[in-house]
Amino acid sequence: MARAYNFAPGPAALPESVLKQAQADMLEWGTAGASIVEMSHRGPEFMEVAARAEADLRTLLGVPADYAVLFLPGGATTAQALLPLNFAAPGATVDYVVTGHWGKTALRQLTPAVTANIAASGEPDGFRNIPARDTWRLTPGAAYVHITANETIHGVEYRPAWGEPAPETGDVPLFADFSSSIASEPIDITRYGVIYAGAQKNLGPVGISVVIVRRELLERTGQPRADIFNYGSQLAHDSMLNTPPTWNWYMAGLVFRWMLDEGGTPEFDRRSDEKAALLYGAIDGSGGFYRNDVDPAVRSRMNIPFFLAEDAHNAVFLDGAREAGLIGLKGHRVLGGMRASIYNAMPVDGVRALVAYMQDFQKRHG
Amino acid sequence: MARAYNFAPGPAALPESVLKQAQADMLEWGTAGASIVEMSHRGPEFMEVAARAEADLRTLLGVPADYAVLFLPGGATTAQALLPLNFAAPGATVDYVVTGHWGKTALRQLTPAVTANIAASGEPDGFRNIPARDTWRLTPGAAYVHITANETIHGVEYRPAWGEPAPETGDVPLFADFSSSIASEPIDITRYGVIYAGAQKNLGPVGISVVIVRRELLERTGQPRADIFNYGSQLAHDSMLNTPPTWNWYMAGLVFRWMLDEGGTPEFDRRSDEKAALLYGAIDGSGGFYRNDVDPAVRSRMNIPFFLAEDAHNAVFLDGAREAGLIGLKGHRVLGGMRASIYNAMPVDGVRALVAYMQDFQKRHG
Repeated sequence: MARAYNFAPGPAALPESVLKQAQADMLEWGTAGASIVEMSHRGPEFMEVAARAEADLRTLLGVPADYAVLFLPGGATTAQALLPLNFAAPGATVDYVVTGHWGKTALRQLTPAVTANIAASGEPDGFRNIPARDTWRLTPGAAYVHITANETIHGVEYRPAWGEPAPETGDVPLFADFSSSIASEPIDITRYGVIYAGAQKNLGPVGISVVIVRRELLERTGQPRADIFNYGSQLAHDSMLNTPPTWNWYMAGLVFRWMLDEGGTPEFDRRSDEKAALLYGAIDGSGGFYRNDVDPAVRSRMNIPFFLAEDAHNAVFLDGAREAGLIGLKGHRVLGGMRASIYNAMPVDGVRALVAYMQDFQKRHG
Repeated sequence: MARAYNFAPGPAALPESVLKQAQADMLEWGTAGASIVEMSHRGPEFMEVAARAEADLRTLLGVPADYAVLFLPGGATTAQALLPLNFAAPGATVDYVVTGHWGKTALRQLTPAVTANIAASGEPDGFRNIPARDTWRLTPGAAYVHITANETIHGVEYRPAWGEPAPETGDVPLFADFSSSIASEPIDITRYGVIYAGAQKNLGPVGISVVIVRRELLERTGQPRADIFNYGSQLAHDSMLNTPPTWNWYMAGLVFRWMLDEGGTPEFDRRSDEKAALLYGAIDGSGGFYRNDVDPAVRSRMNIPFFLAEDAHNAVFLDGAREAGLIGLKGHRVLGGMRASIYNAMPVDGVRALVAYMQDFQKRHG
């Protein structure tokens, strides 16, 4: 088949122009005599790629000068393990608000040297909403409060209709996993102590992550840890304490540049609204043939799980979607059903094609 | 310029056929409708890529069934941080033999929860040799003995002329950083408890590492640590506890297949002998115009540092090399001078071209 509309949750669709650039660059970088993937990370060619990527990301997200940007191997789960090591003293309490699968994963990365307090959890309600801010049991003097800005499996996202886009946590810094919603809208970075994201949804290929951290937090002692796990050491070495994943970094840089060229976060905010409205509209307007169970106030604009009224239709739905050039729609095994991930690289036309297919499928099977 | 002979130490040259395959695959994987870099790591396409890569690596290296193979994000330095967390109980002693820069780096990844014993060090002698095995002060009951099979900066490698290829450590398992020499010759895996390697020298692109571990060692409790840092958890999840660096894994798989097609480790052993003999021969036969200071018994076949008698010639040498289509020869800042890294992807003809250039340069400047 030709390239399809790819609704995979991550690794996810990349802009075709980025893939074509990567293809053109694969054998040789300019006139350097070697591919960018074969060149020293400390050579002038890659150093320029890295610096450009950071500058573009800072422009894209509006990162203030008093925030450092790290590009590190691994994904969000690795970052979740490093947060307590870097920012929580032995014996400190860390507050976690759990609104889905990835919030629970974050908890599993804590070591016994810190005390985890689950300040709020959406689990009793099947992760279909986000507990109201005034119900959170925050710990005075906690090392940080951790949230998951968007939950890719449960399709739950902090949205304006819930209340604040970034919950108020007073003097305690707010740490947020933005893996699946970063760069989908303008955000106020200063509301956060740390923002981190695996690249494989909105920022590029899997294998690299971005950590944006208020510099003053790097003065915290944290836990005894390996040098390679020390964010301060990484910053002092330009995220090159060891050999970084250069190709992944280069690819993320191409995606940053593409997002800027397309109009930046205001434009992706607009497109995300349009795409989500189309898809939720189709689900809600199906008379129950399709169903999404998330509280409308916190419905994700990035990952939209939905269920067919009859499970027996699932396999036929997926086969037909594939034939229609729509792939990656199978839901996560935790929930079953379907899930459409519509990150920045998914054009509005892709969602229109999905909606048309859903309506046609309903006519044939409804 | 056209593609040059690339002597970079890592990221390093990849086989051109591998880059061409990656280029061909970039927009679409077979008829899947998406690039391999855009597809779910749990989908059938990538699962097949991953399984094939492991099977090929096992064939290439002769990995016995009682050894697990992990494919993990990050490089050797991350592995160095995870070894004590996974294999040393709190308070245990770990023995390190330091034969260059990377052995020292490994020490910096230890936490205070273990006691590090430097059993032997080549540092007093400028890392120009490897201390004889009978001088090592090993700790009875140590959690493990750690060595660096090949030091990329100092150009020091455990070779048969030194004594045993894998030093005898009795009941204490031997852990070895094989980042820069893995797959350059047949080795007896059973002599090691753990072998680990960042991919970016002999195995593929940077951003993924391989850890080969005797399964019984995974029963050790180790230190309290995040789930993502637990090798046992990673093994239980097929190295997919989180989203793995899929493109890097795919590329490593292409390199494994290329090495098998070329004749496997016996053939690369033969080529490494030939390439190293050519280059050391040129250095030693230059009457002092070029110099390598390493004890011939432990001279690396992978990384050959050398110095021009006159430092003033360095820049001219590098410029001329570049014009001759020979790149990546600048020495590491720790040592200065030159360094030729001649991993498996460097053809014998590349070393011949370098030797011809060196001899010509000497004629013009000697």
